[in-house]
Amino acid sequence: MSHTTPSLPAAAHVLAVDIGGTKVDAALVSTSGEVIRSSVTRRPTGRGNDRDTIARNVRQAAETALAAVPEARVTAIGVGSAGPVDLPSRSVSPLNLPLAAGLRIDEVLGGLVDGPIHLALDGTCIALAEHWRGALVGCDDAMAIVVSTGVGGGLVLGGRPVSGASGNAGHLGQTFVRTLEGDDVVAATLEAVAAGPGTVAWAKKQGWEGETGLDLAASHASGDAVAIAAVSRSATAVGQAIAAAATLCDLEAVAIAGGFSQVAPDYVDQVRAAAQAASLHAYARRCRIVGSGLDGDGPLLGAAALALQS
Amino acid sequence: MSHTTPSLPAAAHVLAVDIGGTKVDAALVSTSGEVIRSSVTRRPTGRGNDRDTIARNVRQAAETALAAVPEARVTAIGVGSAGPVDLPSRSVSPLNLPLAAGLRIDEVLGGLVDGPIHLALDGTCIALAEHWRGALVGCDDAMAIVVSTGVGGGLVLGGRPVSGASGNAGHLGQTFVRTLEGDDVVAATLEAVAAGPGTVAWAKKQGWEGETGLDLAASHASGDAVAIAAVSRSATAVGQAIAAAATLCDLEAVAIAGGFSQVAPDYVDQVRAAAQAASLHAYARRCRIVGSGLDGDGPLLGAAALALQS
Repeated sequence: MSHTTPSLPAAAHVLAVDIGGTKVDAALVSTSGEVIRSSVTRRPTGRGNDRDTIARNVRQAAETALAAVPEARVTAIGVGSAGPVDLPSRSVSPLNLPLAAGLRIDEVLGGLVDGPIHLALDGTCIALAEHWRGALVGCDDAMAIVVSTGVGGGLVLGGRPVSGASGNAGHLGQTFVRTLEGDDVVAATLEAVAAGPGTVAWAKKQGWEGETGLDLAASHASGDAVAIAAVSRSATAVGQAIAAAATLCDLEAVAIAGGFSQVAPDYVDQVRAAAQAASLHAYARRCRIVGSGLDGDGPLLGAAALALQS
Repeated sequence: MSHTTPSLPAAAHVLAVDIGGTKVDAALVSTSGEVIRSSVTRRPTGRGNDRDTIARNVRQAAETALAAVPEARVTAIGVGSAGPVDLPSRSVSPLNLPLAAGLRIDEVLGGLVDGPIHLALDGTCIALAEHWRGALVGCDDAMAIVVSTGVGGGLVLGGRPVSGASGNAGHLGQTFVRTLEGDDVVAATLEAVAAGPGTVAWAKKQGWEGETGLDLAASHASGDAVAIAAVSRSATAVGQAIAAAATLCDLEAVAIAGGFSQVAPDYVDQVRAAAQAASLHAYARRCRIVGSGLDGDGPLLGAAALALQS
């Protein structure tokens, strides 16, 4: 039996994949949470593309990320996906990718890595990322919310990610909140009331003349009364939904991420005030509400955390 | 060294204790879920009693249950308590026992048994009981709700009880729902809208002349229009709250217990219809909503499950 000179094994990495409505990102991430920059790869997804096209682009993104660091020892794949997902069938059906419904992750990414493939909702991955390296470090009962063109989220309870029966726990955007429509209190989904598009649409109905969330941020900064009311309406709805979740799940902390949560410098403060007002139990009022502790790498870090902690 | 004739060890039991607003129950429960009838003991608690009195009655109930079966080998204590509880300080502060706030379970029950003392919210214990021996057997992502003079509940996710940061996960009654007040949609807590007292009060405001939940059940059975509307209002609110919880936590099933859920034979059917209508995601609509699979032993069985499964 011949012996070769022993070499140190390459540090282990995982392949992180984030499947969204407009693009898929892939990258290698080290076990300590470093995203390997040279490996970060993006390919389009998009509403008009069929399942085969999207499957091909997801696989290409993964292959390209892997090929960028050929010496890396990759031990697992973590996949976060826009929802709904279906963990029992290991498939995803993102609402914004209607032609790709039922995309089977094991078929798309099989054979690329000698190790398991872990799948979760993107919101679950964000919660894992905040818990691992962001604003929820040390909080074993916590929620992350993303307020953007939609409202998503994820839960960590007892230190572990919550998937629920089919993997969709965290879809806070499709719970109902109460809001004012003219003088009437009406019920609407959190996403319809609080996300960027719904907030912009409401402001336009009140006579505001901008078009985008950035326009709204500018109007808010200049003191425009409708913009201020629109932002307050969004933050109040998010706060109400957080109060319900904090009451039901007894959360220690909630982290708020997503571009639209930057629409005003005091957005998180407004959310916190609304959550306090809607929390009847002292334990729910104690829930800390904070901004995200992540940068744009959050979704990839979360997919990596899923692979590393599963 | 002398040898005595070996005897079979006594089968292991746990001591189950259920602390409520009007009484405390204690009993020995076998590892297979049999409540030892001769050991079942009840002592009063009550709003007017101070902490020392309640502590004494809780301990007496436990001692009496233990003394009833002196040959039993008791390996642990499981305690379910009306909330809020505070697991970090191992104390309970039931809303209906205001003079007993901060009751420390280890001081009350210490030294009775050579084994650990496990504590949880009563709603968590009901969820554990339904999961162990009731309507939620085999459902690892599930919720139990109790609709009675209040509305409580508990969660099992990933097959494990959810305590949350302080032990209060499951307090669904203090989340908000939308309901009609005259012609206006208003926000109110689920408990205010759906529990027995709130439902009776609402019916009386509409001119109904009964006084109790049993009266309401009789009026409902005889086709009284206000009683029918009152029951529908309660069931609709419970369904809305279940839809929110099923969406947030991706629940496979929900079991509905509590005396007021018997107010009409189709109460659970009405809850189910309301939950379906308020569930936007297919996975949430798939959540099964069923009546409780437990009898009056549910709280004790749940406390026992807590001790056995911890």
